[in-house]
Amino acid sequence: MMSERVICEKEAVWTDGAGSGVTDERVEDWLYALRHMDTLAIEHEGQPVSYRELAERVASRAAFLAELGVTRGERVAVLMAHGLLFAITLHALRYLGAVTVPINARLSLEEMVWQVDDVEARTLLCDEAHEVQRIAICERLSHVRAWRCAVEMKEGKRAFAPDSICLSDVQSIIYTSGTTGRPKGALLTYGNHFASAVASALRLGMLPTDRWLTALPLFHVGGQAVLMRSIIYGTAAVLQDRFDEAAHRARLLQGDITMVSVVAATLLRMMDDEVTFPAALRVVLLGGGPAPAPLLKRCIARGVPVVQTYGLTEANSQVATLRPAEVSSRVGSAGQPLMSSTVRIVDERGEYCPPNGVGEIQIKGPTLCAGYWQEKKVRSALAEDGWFHTGDIGYLDEEGYLYVLDRRKDLIVSGGENVYPAEVEAVLLTHPSVAEAAVVGRDDATYGQVPVAVLAVHAPYDEAALLSFCRAQLAGYKVPKQLLVVDRLPRNAAGKLLKREMRLWF
Amino acid sequence: MMSERVICEKEAVWTDGAGSGVTDERVEDWLYALRHMDTLAIEHEGQPVSYRELAERVASRAAFLAELGVTRGERVAVLMAHGLLFAITLHALRYLGAVTVPINARLSLEEMVWQVDDVEARTLLCDEAHEVQRIAICERLSHVRAWRCAVEMKEGKRAFAPDSICLSDVQSIIYTSGTTGRPKGALLTYGNHFASAVASALRLGMLPTDRWLTALPLFHVGGQAVLMRSIIYGTAAVLQDRFDEAAHRARLLQGDITMVSVVAATLLRMMDDEVTFPAALRVVLLGGGPAPAPLLKRCIARGVPVVQTYGLTEANSQVATLRPAEVSSRVGSAGQPLMSSTVRIVDERGEYCPPNGVGEIQIKGPTLCAGYWQEKKVRSALAEDGWFHTGDIGYLDEEGYLYVLDRRKDLIVSGGENVYPAEVEAVLLTHPSVAEAAVVGRDDATYGQVPVAVLAVHAPYDEAALLSFCRAQLAGYKVPKQLLVVDRLPRNAAGKLLKREMRLWF
Repeated sequence: MMSERVICEKEAVWTDGAGSGVTDERVEDWLYALRHMDTLAIEHEGQPVSYRELAERVASRAAFLAELGVTRGERVAVLMAHGLLFAITLHALRYLGAVTVPINARLSLEEMVWQVDDVEARTLLCDEAHEVQRIAICERLSHVRAWRCAVEMKEGKRAFAPDSICLSDVQSIIYTSGTTGRPKGALLTYGNHFASAVASALRLGMLPTDRWLTALPLFHVGGQAVLMRSIIYGTAAVLQDRFDEAAHRARLLQGDITMVSVVAATLLRMMDDEVTFPAALRVVLLGGGPAPAPLLKRCIARGVPVVQTYGLTEANSQVATLRPAEVSSRVGSAGQPLMSSTVRIVDERGEYCPPNGVGEIQIKGPTLCAGYWQEKKVRSALAEDGWFHTGDIGYLDEEGYLYVLDRRKDLIVSGGENVYPAEVEAVLLTHPSVAEAAVVGRDDATYGQVPVAVLAVHAPYDEAALLSFCRAQLAGYKVPKQLLVVDRLPRNAAGKLLKREMRLWF
Repeated sequence: MMSERVICEKEAVWTDGAGSGVTDERVEDWLYALRHMDTLAIEHEGQPVSYRELAERVASRAAFLAELGVTRGERVAVLMAHGLLFAITLHALRYLGAVTVPINARLSLEEMVWQVDDVEARTLLCDEAHEVQRIAICERLSHVRAWRCAVEMKEGKRAFAPDSICLSDVQSIIYTSGTTGRPKGALLTYGNHFASAVASALRLGMLPTDRWLTALPLFHVGGQAVLMRSIIYGTAAVLQDRFDEAAHRARLLQGDITMVSVVAATLLRMMDDEVTFPAALRVVLLGGGPAPAPLLKRCIARGVPVVQTYGLTEANSQVATLRPAEVSSRVGSAGQPLMSSTVRIVDERGEYCPPNGVGEIQIKGPTLCAGYWQEKKVRSALAEDGWFHTGDIGYLDEEGYLYVLDRRKDLIVSGGENVYPAEVEAVLLTHPSVAEAAVVGRDDATYGQVPVAVLAVHAPYDEAALLSFCRAQLAGYKVPKQLLVVDRLPRNAAGKLLKREMRLWF
């Protein structure tokens, strides 16, 4: 039976049960437990929704979806840019025990069709903005029933009360953003969400009055985690459907936001003037890749409580996060591993690195996904011993603080020397002419590879001055051998640089 | 082997593994992970100790205890009134994998000897204040090695690094305070502490800058929980060795305390004047039995953020706790069950009560202890299906809020009517002449039992006026048939009324 397959997927992957530490534990549904609360659950583009109202909407949406025939364990593709609608849908699918498969709204139609087909979804739920895609996907996949949804719509006749939550059940399948290679669907369980929410709260603190602002896409793990954490904490998620620096800043300046999730590119744009953020803002959580040190230093100098985190889809967001009190003393570190998560550094021979030794970051813990969809053999990434090989390069210092250098596949080896693009990018970004920078490798007859850079610049811009600026701060083999200026750097929906694409330009 | 016995005790008790939900999961030692932090870990009677310093003291104390021959799994009796010394000892024993058995410092020598013997301790650690007891216990139990400890003392030669923590291991055995019957030793695991700390944080909030003040005895579960939570959160515990209202209030008025644990008797004494508590004080956590409504109302009227909780030793403190935002709208309720805990109400025929139906409170969840020391058969209290029968009487309303009426054994049945002493006490306490009140049952030839009261009063006091005050608010069968005035009501070390003792007075 299909419905049992997803639920049992975990056993197929984790023979030793090391995935989450929790197996058959059940808890009361998180949202349902809060259904009598009149406090803020979600604010969407300025519109407040209380827990009572959210729970009512979710219960009647779940009843409606049940009438449509959505069943327990079924994988339902969700293609929505509308944050409130996405949240209602996600929780309603949980009420039904169905699995949410968020489709990246920025994918090409081909990619969407591939993903809906790969995950064997029978049902696709879209918002009005994706009517074209809805019709096109149905044409290509005739067995898929696709429904256009809206926040206000005819709902199910009877109220729907959810079962308790089984922590080992799969809540969603999120395809890795796939800056290279074919995307894989990470199976995120309720236990992953609970462990992740708890570990984040223990590191960053949590108040019942918290309001967490984000414009990160909800179809990525960082955005979805804000929704799930809020429901587990009983706090408010403040959603903006797309990042607009003026709107984001304006919302922050209202003074009630306590937490905000950003990536370096969005933080950079928000920091582009002399605004002072309100005192209630406790944490600016910076994820999505190694952060440029100049940006961090600028934030610290201006009293912005920026806290670097290292996370990934397979670990349901955060793995390590700096403590707010350590922001000034540990610039550039992503902090110690979160409670219950373990990080180790392994060199190319498969041996543990000593403190400060650079190697691959490998992780283990209860936030690690139960495996990949459709992969029975997991010898590679999600290893049998419970360690996940991230493909990221970094080191742990003597006190267990993690420093992330780069993606291993982004590493440039030039004449036998390692060049970490993130380090070169950080130097480029300190130059007043440079707005954005990406460093990639170009094949070279003499050195194997040499670093080259793609830049977005402010006028006026003097190439020779910039290169001499770099030579003053970097070893010669690290200085970019070619500069390419563009209007805006290509990024995926999560704000990550698309280096694969840029490599093709050289 | 002794050391394996304690660790396996859980299996003997919980054949279905329903105890904690976590079985063999390991986490890095909580204190050891914080050993590089210079933030406040403990303030003891005004003396600050940072995490770095605490970890150093604990590591060398653990080395010292290892040299004395303390081994993994060994039960070590700890008789200390000195809070900092108690904390160092507790953490050092954890570093060794030994089990802490806190001895209630207010027990008679006979009771102490019985407990040290019952738990089969080979080692007893005392502070200087308990030198007389140390010598006397050794005389009675010749196989026990007893050591006098101090904060400053010769320590072990080498630094001691702890193993990771196995969440199913027993951390401590706390004997139930035993207001009636023979005490039983509740086996509290690391998993209990972790689940408890997490659930408390999710209900009350937690900030890395929190400072939790308490003068509750550390040998009881409420005091020990403050120590364990602080280490799990990485926040500060502010300890006073005994409750003194002036010292307690003075410390609160310094303005940095965010949380404080109290019982009704201590809160009543603190509230005895017109002090305004600082804004940083987020939660006054009120436990130790049903709280008198007049006290709650007085706190709310004065803006004191009092939050009622229902807890017990076997559940490692809190089971249900009100949310801070619900304080005014749910006066008298102990709130919904904490995250992952479940509460049900069962009547005398063993059937579930409907909402608002009064019956025994039964609980289940990951904070529930692994069983009782030396009890292989657990058909009674810790039932095989994972439900703990608390012996407390209460009800859940339609929205899952718990109202605790009284201990079942304190219930008075008078002429076929139930009289809840807590209800009568609450009325007595609203009278301006009454400082403290306890209502117990006295045998009666006509009614079986009748309610009678023990009072501590303010002068002037008019018995007839007080009784007519009661008659105006209570049904006749609930009005005390006899009043006994004393200087101060007898309480155990946790501040609970010793009703067993008072019953003998009539």
